[in-house]
Amino acid sequence: MATKAYAAQTADSPLAPFEIERRAPGPKDVKIDILYCGVCHSDLHQARGEWTNTIWPCVPGHEIVGRVSAVGGDVTKFKVGDIAGVGCMVDSCDHCASCDEGLEQYCENGFTGTYNGDNSGSGENTYGGYSDAIVVKEHFALKVTHSEEQLAAVAPLLCAGITTWSPLRHWNVGPGMKVGIVGIGGLGHMGIKLAHALGAHVVAFTTSDNKREAAKQLGADEVVVSKNDEEMQAHVGSFDFILNTVAASHNLDAFLNLLKRDGTMTLVGVPEHPHPSPSVMSMIFKRRSLAGSLIGGIAETQEMLDFCAEKGIVSDIEMIAIQDIEAAYERMLKGDVKYRFVIDSKTLQDA
Amino acid sequence: MATKAYAAQTADSPLAPFEIERRAPGPKDVKIDILYCGVCHSDLHQARGEWTNTIWPCVPGHEIVGRVSAVGGDVTKFKVGDIAGVGCMVDSCDHCASCDEGLEQYCENGFTGTYNGDNSGSGENTYGGYSDAIVVKEHFALKVTHSEEQLAAVAPLLCAGITTWSPLRHWNVGPGMKVGIVGIGGLGHMGIKLAHALGAHVVAFTTSDNKREAAKQLGADEVVVSKNDEEMQAHVGSFDFILNTVAASHNLDAFLNLLKRDGTMTLVGVPEHPHPSPSVMSMIFKRRSLAGSLIGGIAETQEMLDFCAEKGIVSDIEMIAIQDIEAAYERMLKGDVKYRFVIDSKTLQDA
Repeated sequence: MATKAYAAQTADSPLAPFEIERRAPGPKDVKIDILYCGVCHSDLHQARGEWTNTIWPCVPGHEIVGRVSAVGGDVTKFKVGDIAGVGCMVDSCDHCASCDEGLEQYCENGFTGTYNGDNSGSGENTYGGYSDAIVVKEHFALKVTHSEEQLAAVAPLLCAGITTWSPLRHWNVGPGMKVGIVGIGGLGHMGIKLAHALGAHVVAFTTSDNKREAAKQLGADEVVVSKNDEEMQAHVGSFDFILNTVAASHNLDAFLNLLKRDGTMTLVGVPEHPHPSPSVMSMIFKRRSLAGSLIGGIAETQEMLDFCAEKGIVSDIEMIAIQDIEAAYERMLKGDVKYRFVIDSKTLQDA
Repeated sequence: MATKAYAAQTADSPLAPFEIERRAPGPKDVKIDILYCGVCHSDLHQARGEWTNTIWPCVPGHEIVGRVSAVGGDVTKFKVGDIAGVGCMVDSCDHCASCDEGLEQYCENGFTGTYNGDNSGSGENTYGGYSDAIVVKEHFALKVTHSEEQLAAVAPLLCAGITTWSPLRHWNVGPGMKVGIVGIGGLGHMGIKLAHALGAHVVAFTTSDNKREAAKQLGADEVVVSKNDEEMQAHVGSFDFILNTVAASHNLDAFLNLLKRDGTMTLVGVPEHPHPSPSVMSMIFKRRSLAGSLIGGIAETQEMLDFCAEKGIVSDIEMIAIQDIEAAYERMLKGDVKYRFVIDSKTLQDA
């Protein structure tokens, strides 16, 4: 099925109209006509070949919300007309320990990315959500129960939302806990909203004094400007958990030292250049842990979407036309977005 | 009470005979006539002022076993003639969250070290086990139930033993788990013995091909020479827990990559120069953790001693006279000890 898309043909070429082929839905597939697609920083990295693993042409996009337009004969979760989401994965091996536990993101045989992924081991490239429609196994499609007018702002939940939700849940964030969220960008703003909704006392960390008010409006109980030593010092040894969403190389010790005994700081961003080596002394003297976490499994993504629908949580977004994607990338690089761009997919019709 | 000891007077002076004063036992104190004292690498660091916090003169030693020779009126745990041990701590605040949980090593107000510690906040220096006798609060004295002939080899359990026991227990090492022990020195050889006795499948990591047999005799099910890429590769993604006892700066990723999803590597040594920064990618893609752990609390030290007595576990030691301490330090620096020197304290009489 011929499908309109936007693709980068090489690392140096801007995203431009491109026609891709989608498979006809198999018995367990759903076809989703895409309504909205969030713009993740990974999209930019991949489209510009910065992670050196891009398969060209590259159609980015893994924060997809759309309407089911066809279902295979064995599909039970969806019917035509349902609203569905697709996140970072469209397949996994389905028989390893991680898949068995519903943690497909840690598939021992490697999950298939929604774009730039090996499609079911066929060697064929996958194409993401900067397109008209997508065909996926129903297991990797999520049910979306938010209201129609919220759908654009639901899209970023499929990556930014689940990437923060999964560690918050895994490390049991809830009432009575003091939780830090480092960075107030696409991921961090969701971290603040979700940790707050889970009942924790939330402290947001930012390098920008002018983000104080915004962070409070997102749900932070306190805001700390991390460049201010005095403000940081007041929180030493007091956090149960810190979710660090900052991908740029920075001093981890400044935050590790804020953890209580047995506290954990979890990183969800991979820095281009390594962070300065964390202090072993800081870890030893309070039995602190430094950990990482990758997106989230399908079951927990559904859990997060249901939780957000119930609590009325969506991302804060700025809608763009697909024609403005390169300008949006440039603004992302400057941190000039509150807090996620979302592509209005009907603008693909003008492509 | 005048007490014979060996002390360093400055960073540059060798350890030499020195007379110290011990307090008369208070109501809750026990006096212990020291039989044996293990030689920990920290002793050398402190005696030579390498950690820049040494208070002079410095009487090292925190792996102490001896016989109770006096008890205060309120002492209930010991009577004269009992065998008792003293480890790295002789006091703590007794009213913080960590002390309340029996984790005095993480005392929020700082525990008092057995040597080079501020004695009960008085500003007075503490003197360790390179001495004839010690007076301590009974809470910080441990009951030793090993046989008389095992007592010298029990001494290192008070630091090397508990430093490895505490993380093995905290991270629930037991049957069905694959556990790595990195480094086969004073700490590592105890880690192997204890992890084995706890029922785990134990893999010892060493840089020396010639330690293979010795590691197996200590209880390792497998031995991996960490410089051998092929051997390392065979274990990628397979460990539940790794206890890393190596204090020298080294590549942590080589071991982090051996952890399963959700596995933890715990460091118990503080390197003089930082380790190369660990790979965030490795942590994120398997939700791995890097952690630290510090000695152990009094309750878990007693648990470890009781467990070792029951299982017949002691350290592998080489006994020395106190007069040979500087020569022993030189051999320690070369790694030439299997696996712990222990001072025969009666040699202090010749001082």
